[in-house]
Amino acid sequence: MNSSALELEVPKHAAPDTVRRILDQAKQDRRTSLTAPEAKAICDAYGITVPREALATSADEAAARAADMGFPVVLKIVSRDILHKTEAGGVLVGLKSVDEVRAGYDTILANAKAYNANAEIAGVQVQQMLTSGQEVIIGAVTDDSFGKLVAFGMGGILVEVLKDITFRLAPIDKDEALGMIDGIQAAEMLRGVRGGEPADRAALADMIARVSRLVDDFPEIAELDLNPVFAMANGAIAADVRIVLDFAPKEVRPRPGQAEILAAMNRIMRPRAVAVIGASAENGKIGNSVMKNIINGGYPGEIYPIHPQAAEIMGYKAYKSVKDVPSEIDVAVFAIPAKFVAGALKECGEKGIAGAVLIPSGFAETGNEEGQRELQEIGRKYNIRLMGPNIYGFYYLPAKLCATFCTPYDVRGHAALSSQSGGIGMAIIGFSRSAKMGVSAIVGLGNKSDLDEDDLLTFFEADDETHIVAQHLEDLKDGRSFADVARRVTKKKPVVVLKAGRTAAGAKAASSHTGALAGNDRIYEDVFKQVGVIRARSLREMLDFARGIPKLPTPAGENVVIITGAGGSGVLLSDACVDYGLKLMAMPEDLDTAFRKFIPPFGAAGNPVDITGGEPPSTYQNTIRLGLEDPRIHALILGYWHTIITPPMVFANLVVQVVEEFRAKGIEKPIVASLAGDVEVEEAAEFLYEHGIPSYAYSTEIPVAVLGAKYNWARGAGLIR
Amino acid sequence: MNSSALELEVPKHAAPDTVRRILDQAKQDRRTSLTAPEAKAICDAYGITVPREALATSADEAAARAADMGFPVVLKIVSRDILHKTEAGGVLVGLKSVDEVRAGYDTILANAKAYNANAEIAGVQVQQMLTSGQEVIIGAVTDDSFGKLVAFGMGGILVEVLKDITFRLAPIDKDEALGMIDGIQAAEMLRGVRGGEPADRAALADMIARVSRLVDDFPEIAELDLNPVFAMANGAIAADVRIVLDFAPKEVRPRPGQAEILAAMNRIMRPRAVAVIGASAENGKIGNSVMKNIINGGYPGEIYPIHPQAAEIMGYKAYKSVKDVPSEIDVAVFAIPAKFVAGALKECGEKGIAGAVLIPSGFAETGNEEGQRELQEIGRKYNIRLMGPNIYGFYYLPAKLCATFCTPYDVRGHAALSSQSGGIGMAIIGFSRSAKMGVSAIVGLGNKSDLDEDDLLTFFEADDETHIVAQHLEDLKDGRSFADVARRVTKKKPVVVLKAGRTAAGAKAASSHTGALAGNDRIYEDVFKQVGVIRARSLREMLDFARGIPKLPTPAGENVVIITGAGGSGVLLSDACVDYGLKLMAMPEDLDTAFRKFIPPFGAAGNPVDITGGEPPSTYQNTIRLGLEDPRIHALILGYWHTIITPPMVFANLVVQVVEEFRAKGIEKPIVASLAGDVEVEEAAEFLYEHGIPSYAYSTEIPVAVLGAKYNWARGAGLIR
Repeated sequence: MNSSALELEVPKHAAPDTVRRILDQAKQDRRTSLTAPEAKAICDAYGITVPREALATSADEAAARAADMGFPVVLKIVSRDILHKTEAGGVLVGLKSVDEVRAGYDTILANAKAYNANAEIAGVQVQQMLTSGQEVIIGAVTDDSFGKLVAFGMGGILVEVLKDITFRLAPIDKDEALGMIDGIQAAEMLRGVRGGEPADRAALADMIARVSRLVDDFPEIAELDLNPVFAMANGAIAADVRIVLDFAPKEVRPRPGQAEILAAMNRIMRPRAVAVIGASAENGKIGNSVMKNIINGGYPGEIYPIHPQAAEIMGYKAYKSVKDVPSEIDVAVFAIPAKFVAGALKECGEKGIAGAVLIPSGFAETGNEEGQRELQEIGRKYNIRLMGPNIYGFYYLPAKLCATFCTPYDVRGHAALSSQSGGIGMAIIGFSRSAKMGVSAIVGLGNKSDLDEDDLLTFFEADDETHIVAQHLEDLKDGRSFADVARRVTKKKPVVVLKAGRTAAGAKAASSHTGALAGNDRIYEDVFKQVGVIRARSLREMLDFARGIPKLPTPAGENVVIITGAGGSGVLLSDACVDYGLKLMAMPEDLDTAFRKFIPPFGAAGNPVDITGGEPPSTYQNTIRLGLEDPRIHALILGYWHTIITPPMVFANLVVQVVEEFRAKGIEKPIVASLAGDVEVEEAAEFLYEHGIPSYAYSTEIPVAVLGAKYNWARGAGLIR
Repeated sequence: MNSSALELEVPKHAAPDTVRRILDQAKQDRRTSLTAPEAKAICDAYGITVPREALATSADEAAARAADMGFPVVLKIVSRDILHKTEAGGVLVGLKSVDEVRAGYDTILANAKAYNANAEIAGVQVQQMLTSGQEVIIGAVTDDSFGKLVAFGMGGILVEVLKDITFRLAPIDKDEALGMIDGIQAAEMLRGVRGGEPADRAALADMIARVSRLVDDFPEIAELDLNPVFAMANGAIAADVRIVLDFAPKEVRPRPGQAEILAAMNRIMRPRAVAVIGASAENGKIGNSVMKNIINGGYPGEIYPIHPQAAEIMGYKAYKSVKDVPSEIDVAVFAIPAKFVAGALKECGEKGIAGAVLIPSGFAETGNEEGQRELQEIGRKYNIRLMGPNIYGFYYLPAKLCATFCTPYDVRGHAALSSQSGGIGMAIIGFSRSAKMGVSAIVGLGNKSDLDEDDLLTFFEADDETHIVAQHLEDLKDGRSFADVARRVTKKKPVVVLKAGRTAAGAKAASSHTGALAGNDRIYEDVFKQVGVIRARSLREMLDFARGIPKLPTPAGENVVIITGAGGSGVLLSDACVDYGLKLMAMPEDLDTAFRKFIPPFGAAGNPVDITGGEPPSTYQNTIRLGLEDPRIHALILGYWHTIITPPMVFANLVVQVVEEFRAKGIEKPIVASLAGDVEVEEAAEFLYEHGIPSYAYSTEIPVAVLGAKYNWARGAGLIR
């Protein structure tokens, strides 16, 4: 779990032993929670600060201990014969001086004697009393999909009413913990508001990191609450600790190693030989569509139709079983009814086929859980990876492979998309075709009996043809594995996820659709952010991101400049920059002067650069050239306004010309464009997109959203200083 | 100001007199703020509860007063000779009993004597001390555009860190004030959290309403702060009052009455005769484009080209001046350079022309404020309404009038759109043409020297051809007038506004574009909500709303049902329902059973109704029919999945057939559709839109956003119980 990254001063050997002993005792006692002293001992072992306390057996000792820990303090009688301490007058709070403590000690002893003259008294506990500081909550939970998560939020009303809380996969280091503290809505409160002292954020971060380490070290700690934690100007103390245990063994999902996954995925996605089980010459049959698509898609490898009787299908020699095929087969596409799948899958296993593309429906999605389990068992036994069942198949364009019953797709590019749902897959195909999106792969994952999002990530990470991965999903069967892989992949390529079932209503539909309970959306949100995944807010946004982001070079810095012919677009583009987290460059005076040279005197200063509406092509040309030339500018947003003087295609051509001129000089900056005008702007937008400038007609938001997503990814991957 | 709607027990005659007297005194003293006793007196006059206080001149009297108002109390020396009360030992807080007060009185007097033996002492002020209750803020501000606004927010950190505050145009009644209290993020806190007592929301609402009445009655109260107000379980008390005055007379914007506006607008939008000033036979000239558009657009009225030399232009007799035209002219379209506009405008005035469409640029937007002021003066003198300057003109399709230099537009429908910016206007035209949006009008407002959004609203309100108004704006010159008109219009027709310059960055660009400082966005947001205006979040959203909303009948109730062939779409559509405030109907058992009859046994129960992917047209048909038939269902969202069994146009045709069957029976419910599939779904979407079912390819969000906006409008207009 990479705990070496955590610089925590946990006594390396002693600490875990202490915790282990306490947990073992609890397990032996068949308890699922810990007592306060046990919880405190665990906190002590992991360096989680709790209120100081000491046992005193005389008034003087009590006073000395109190002076040592600082005032005010609480005094409590310690006697196994006195259970109801308060009733017995055995508790005093808020003692503020040595004298008060001394007197208090005597009072408590007197009260105890009066209450029960025979009580055996061990002494008086002196405990540090917390009065100042801001209340926060630090906790940990165990999620079915993601495993151990650490949580941080403001205490009291802010977390209860405003749900102002954030999660991370455990363990995390102090830096990530600081990110949590800064990530909540009310973060400002801890930096000192209304002249108040700022809280000790470093101490809080340390405590969060320690909690995350503790729950990672001891899986049986199912839940942990430090609530409240007092965040003070100097230090942080957990006033109350609650620990819930779960000793039930967790089902471990079998996961092959990354190298093994990659090897299998390579055989599946770039096979030298494909079998079509249920291939058919009859129009309208799925086995016929699959054959047609593989052939018409131009797949150059071997094709083996499998059919119980036919000797030949569509010009290819047919076999009764994959086992009859004389040479090796990498992947088998299934186009037979559900009831025949298991039998054929076994034969695939015996044949040593790496992957089965299970198009047939009739498994978990129709309640046939058992049938699906049978497939999983066969898959594991023979080491065949299963795609689906209940899918449209997949496209992998670099191999010219359309292993699907949908129509072929041939606009090659660098976006790899996948969908859990077939309907969304169809929308991906339609949008791609309509928007001429360059695609490397489209994959249906359906019931995800085996292959899922992280297997695809592992493949696409290594696939040079793929520059972005966009995934629609309703759940993650194994969020922890996904996160582990995504954390690595997002350092190299953007990963966009459309997580459906975001909301209560949505989650309900998800569970009735796939039998998978959609996880808590807040956790998905926070984990995606933690591992650098860009979250799309809508289907269209996912599609626009997949289409636009790979066209853009990675920006070298944060300075974005808007150059616009329409002032009105400039305002809306600026709005969108704030919405999508882009920083409009504060224009240096010399650069402002340089821009002004090209624009009319009443054009607006600063950023946006408003070149005004009536300008000829040369004004666009000069200003865009300047934008590319000046190294202080890192990205451009163009706002075009359709005029007679500079018609849409004139604009598009001049932009491409300037951009190519700079590309030739080795200067590439991300550029997006918003085109306002009559329908001719649609052609211009398409032309610009094809030349590497994602451009959008009638929208001032989409171009900025696309650029914003590129920036978000690049920041997360550490590519922008 | 419709104050009769406010049921406040303000002593009708006495109260304003008291306030008037205090304000007059302050004005006479040239003060811009009030003393604490003055502010208190004003609060008393308006029934705004402040802490009780009394002057005591003996220890016994102090004790009696304190007992009367309840403990704890504060005691303060009252002496004009002692300014620094605390320094003089003249303040005691938290006195909890009659005895403490009696002793405190004596202490304060002794301290005062010791501090200044010669001080003349008027007595000791006894003041109620507030210790319990939640802190909230009630205030009022004066906005340049909207005038008096009342504000409400949670006190302390919530308003400071989370900016959790809401505004309304003053005055408001108690019901609206309750809406404010419920509208803040932390509203739940006032309903009692963690077992706490709920706050007296009625008392808070009463106080908000009284404040709103006060600032409305006395315009010179520029700002008012009750901060904090203690909201208790029983009552609310303003612990501190601050009032800032501004006696500078406000410039009153000349506003004709609604009937006069309507009469002028009717002549402008539906003229019997149009003059084109600067008409030209020369291609590429604006005056040529305008002539062509008016002629080619099919305008059936009289056209008078105005030109200094030509005898005839494009087959129409030309005149040297509008004054030479023998018959009446309603509107003049200007296509001449800025420097000639004023002269020609005067002639229009002398001719009695109702409106001038000022296409020329070169006025305020280029810094020529003076030139624009000159036009305004001429306009007012001759009672000519000015559209622009710096605009593309306008389209009004029911009159077949394209008074613009852009290309004609002829897809007639019921959406009236306007834009402040020319670039956005061009985007409106392009999008409309591309999406075949049915339009009644497209109007450019540009510099808004005279005609603005509320004049258009007044016209479109009365225009039977317009069923929705969508306006792009960067500022409102007179937000109060807009709000007054919008409040009325939104009861009849949806009004959608895209307010640009929403964000800090956006507002900066707005001010450099039009010279208009974009107002505080929070105020726009709250006022739009108050008056029932639907706010579009993006240009595309405004366009989609304008296109889709008028196609939908008004829903009769809140029960929305999703019928989907793609379970995956169902989940995303459900997500979108939550995002856009739609309520998925909790499916009654009998209805669930009825739906189940038509769908496969593994189709999902409840809502969404998941008919599953492989179903024939009859399944869509039967379930949609049931959705229209059952009176408990009020709106349908369809999720189509492209299959071989039910291809896109088969689906589209069957939907239209079922819908028309029910229309014939007088049953109309709003239906939207999301189409997932290959590019053929685009044709299906267009066909469905043309038949009154807004449908969207590759999007699960836009259909729901459009239906959600229709609902939002209908709720605001009181059309849904």
